[in-house]
Amino acid sequence: MSNRETTIAPETTRSRREFLRKGVVTAIAAPMAVSALASCTEGTAQKTATASDSDHSGGSTAPHPSTPAAAAVDPRARSDQMDAMHEKGIKAFPAKTEGKGNQLLAPRIVNGVKVFDITCKAVQWEVEVGKKVEAWTYNGVVPGPQIRVTEGDRIRMIVKNELPESTSVHFHGVEMPNAMDGVPFITQPPIKPGETFTYEFVVPNAGSHMYHSHHNAAKQVGMGMLGAFIVAPKRPRAIEKVDVDYVMILNDGFHGYTLNGKGFPATEPVVAKIGQKARIRFMNEGMMIHPMHLHGMHMTVIDKDGWAQPAPWKCDTLNIAPGERWDVIVHCNNPGTWAFHCHILPHAESEHGMFGMVTALVVQP
Amino acid sequence: MSNRETTIAPETTRSRREFLRKGVVTAIAAPMAVSALASCTEGTAQKTATASDSDHSGGSTAPHPSTPAAAAVDPRARSDQMDAMHEKGIKAFPAKTEGKGNQLLAPRIVNGVKVFDITCKAVQWEVEVGKKVEAWTYNGVVPGPQIRVTEGDRIRMIVKNELPESTSVHFHGVEMPNAMDGVPFITQPPIKPGETFTYEFVVPNAGSHMYHSHHNAAKQVGMGMLGAFIVAPKRPRAIEKVDVDYVMILNDGFHGYTLNGKGFPATEPVVAKIGQKARIRFMNEGMMIHPMHLHGMHMTVIDKDGWAQPAPWKCDTLNIAPGERWDVIVHCNNPGTWAFHCHILPHAESEHGMFGMVTALVVQP
Amino acid sequence: MSNRETTIAPETTRSRREFLRKGVVTAIAAPMAVSALASCTEGTAQKTATASDSDHSGGSTAPHPSTPAAAAVDPRARSDQMDAMHEKGIKAFPAKTEGKGNQLLAPRIVNGVKVFDITCKAVQWEVEVGKKVEAWTYNGVVPGPQIRVTEGDRIRMIVKNELPESTSVHFHGVEMPNAMDGVPFITQPPIKPGETFTYEFVVPNAGSHMYHSHHNAAKQVGMGMLGAFIVAPKRPRAIEKVDVDYVMILNDGFHGYTLNGKGFPATEPVVAKIGQKARIRFMNEGMMIHPMHLHGMHMTVIDKDGWAQPAPWKCDTLNIAPGERWDVIVHCNNPGTWAFHCHILPHAESEHGMFGMVTALVVQP
Repeated sequence: MSNRETTIAPETTRSRREFLRKGVVTAIAAPMAVSALASCTEGTAQKTATASDSDHSGGSTAPHPSTPAAAAVDPRARSDQMDAMHEKGIKAFPAKTEGKGNQLLAPRIVNGVKVFDITCKAVQWEVEVGKKVEAWTYNGVVPGPQIRVTEGDRIRMIVKNELPESTSVHFHGVEMPNAMDGVPFITQPPIKPGETFTYEFVVPNAGSHMYHSHHNAAKQVGMGMLGAFIVAPKRPRAIEKVDVDYVMILNDGFHGYTLNGKGFPATEPVVAKIGQKARIRFMNEGMMIHPMHLHGMHMTVIDKDGWAQPAPWKCDTLNIAPGERWDVIVHCNNPGTWAFHCHILPHAESEHGMFGMVTALVVQP
Repeated sequence: MSNRETTIAPETTRSRREFLRKGVVTAIAAPMAVSALASCTEGTAQKTATASDSDHSGGSTAPHPSTPAAAAVDPRARSDQMDAMHEKGIKAFPAKTEGKGNQLLAPRIVNGVKVFDITCKAVQWEVEVGKKVEAWTYNGVVPGPQIRVTEGDRIRMIVKNELPESTSVHFHGVEMPNAMDGVPFITQPPIKPGETFTYEFVVPNAGSHMYHSHHNAAKQVGMGMLGAFIVAPKRPRAIEKVDVDYVMILNDGFHGYTLNGKGFPATEPVVAKIGQKARIRFMNEGMMIHPMHLHGMHMTVIDKDGWAQPAPWKCDTLNIAPGERWDVIVHCNNPGTWAFHCHILPHAESEHGMFGMVTALVVQP
Repeated sequence: MSNRETTIAPETTRSRREFLRKGVVTAIAAPMAVSALASCTEGTAQKTATASDSDHSGGSTAPHPSTPAAAAVDPRARSDQMDAMHEKGIKAFPAKTEGKGNQLLAPRIVNGVKVFDITCKAVQWEVEVGKKVEAWTYNGVVPGPQIRVTEGDRIRMIVKNELPESTSVHFHGVEMPNAMDGVPFITQPPIKPGETFTYEFVVPNAGSHMYHSHHNAAKQVGMGMLGAFIVAPKRPRAIEKVDVDYVMILNDGFHGYTLNGKGFPATEPVVAKIGQKARIRFMNEGMMIHPMHLHGMHMTVIDKDGWAQPAPWKCDTLNIAPGERWDVIVHCNNPGTWAFHCHILPHAESEHGMFGMVTALVVQP
């Protein structure tokens, strides 16, 4: 690539240095961003050496104005302000917020039964930095605790309802005995405020499943009453032997566009080392499709709703509809920080920068 | 499961009895609901014996108020009122309404040709109990009559237009001679009000197809001018030998969210006996995707748009886009009444209970 | 089909003659429409001889009124006016408009590198006849120039930004070195107004990919900053040997519903001779799904996002989500002009006739 180096203009080098400096400053406030982004920023410095400044439009005298007034009269100033907002969002990633959902919940073991205690309750949930919303939750987090069991396990989930309205839990994808299916007035009475209901069953089928409310669910699931219910097979396939196993729950309810209960830049990056294999388990708990697009590498689709596809197949954009789960394998062979987002662009970016259903796959060298 | 029995609280037993009693009362008004739901309700009584009452929040003195005024001041009363609305909907299922679409239309045989007489006309259509809407129909029903023919048959459809505007019929998925394709001004003149047009052709390809208006179709199909056109293959595959063959047409037009022209609880359950195989032929005649989710059992996808998939594959939530047809096989091996609904939850449930794109698969013991 | 001929009514024959006469008149103004449609219109005359007039509703004395006033009072007149609007649209197809996007851009070859010069600029774009919209473009056209390279090529794209705001280019689907991935503040600084940025890389993976803005992209892609980036494999598969290779880019942004930057009837037909094989490369650059439906023949799906499916599979309606690319093969064995459109009907037809995401596959005898 030696022929490219000759095109470097001095201005570009300077502006990239400024870019890097800002990156470091921002990183102080968001330490995790450093590890994720600083290396790729430096990588950028070494590799994108072909940028070149030229005739700045309008001969702006105030290229980096700090006041809205300046922006109102100068198109270039307005453009720079927009860029600054975009940069601020990126540099804040992954932004710290209060509360983290989708964390593994270890069961109590009672007479060989894996027991999970779940309390339905309302909390204030910080979906983005400084933006708190009312959430209806399992154990105070969105998504609810991640549950991992194995095919053939006997499990018991004791659900206490501290919400102001009735609820129920449906184990979406699990081929239940009917009485445990969680549909009020078909398989059980609703769990009224203050009541407790116990679900108990032998887990019949492996796969990436979900548990969520099945009562007034358009509201209750939209408000946060959902979680991953992962069932490991007794005999995993060779393709399932991975280094990273990540659950990504998509939602678009009352809390806006979220990945695992947070909007960008408060989303969590997926992190792997070069050469590792990562399994991503997509689950859509929302009301809209979300075609998730991974930059830099393809995804190999192995499972749909917990069932193996007849043969794995590849893509870089996977359309995930409400209620669906798709499991993919990413061979992390391309180093860098890679955007990973819903490709319905208004779910991921506005004039104010990236937001909502955006994260990154960080492949560390 | 003996360890579970010990958790039964007396209150729960009582409230379940009340639940069952109500179920029976409701069932008198909706006999079919008895066969579908009563058994599962009893099943519930036997199996969900782990529910336990506990500290009722707020110590409400009016747990089951019957007046809106009470609900306005008491959260528990409001919750109970919501539950009552949900219960009422479920217990009414399958609710009787006037008119039933998607019923098999036997052809007249004229010189070896299967002749179908179709009249396009406006009617008042009872989409839910007591809710009549204007519908534009084939033979007065929504969906239009179900047509079943065999590959290689010569068929004739005589279409009389009694609507106030022109129309045409497109056989969606059938690989027609061009002149029979039903697109006004490309393959034929529109069928004007009062006119009759005859479609005639040898059926070239098997599969789950549709017939619908192709003139001002965003309106006409939305108003009900659609039906199933099923072409049996000359040599069925082994996997096609099923006990139940059910066509489920999804729509979201001017009549709201419907399955075969009705909104829940006026939708029709799919009924099978334990051990039977059911084929569901999904067809989307609407404007939105509908990811149909079956509880309790998975679906094995065999055909897309009437063409065999390279290999069958399994799922529990199948995303069906407008114009698509997907054929699945369900091995009905899990007894009970299983919710079966679009998983875009606002298409299936509101604060007032389930509605729209909801039905059940009833697996009878 | 001799038994059908007997049903011809004199009125029908007359009205079809009038229909044909009008077709010819219209064809003078739209010569390409003649070749595409005139033959099928005649075909209609020979084959749809089964139409028969009968009791005209209301006994209208003014069956073809030319004044709106008449339409306001006479339902049949209103219907005829609607038909006239529909006919006008069809007969205008393919309507001439200023500007044509998605045309092959030959590279400059510099020291063995394929160099593409791209200028980002705002233009007025004629999306339908007489309807100009503001577009943000690559080289003044929507979609941008079509780029075709081969796996292993070294390519350089020199991007000059003449827009009033910053931009960047992401090569969607190409497994880039990170620094070339085009995501501002993650892999590069934004390309500010007046600046030039050079992307250079060895093309790593074959397939139907895209290039588009990745900065303020919900706006910029919606405004037109997108194009096809087709990478031929070094060793094509047998199934890829086709006679027609057509790229169809779907969009639903600020310019309405478009195929390759134009709304019907300004869209471009796909033309093939009988017996030929056509490859259609669908690409969705919009915010909504578009299930594309082909009349008359099925599509054999071979690739998803540039990756071969494990086995080809058939359909007539293919759901394409934002960011996805799907490659299909059509064996053009059914002569005629075949409607080819998004099956979300409000994206394709209104009371005023077909519009938006509609084109035709013309299979010439």
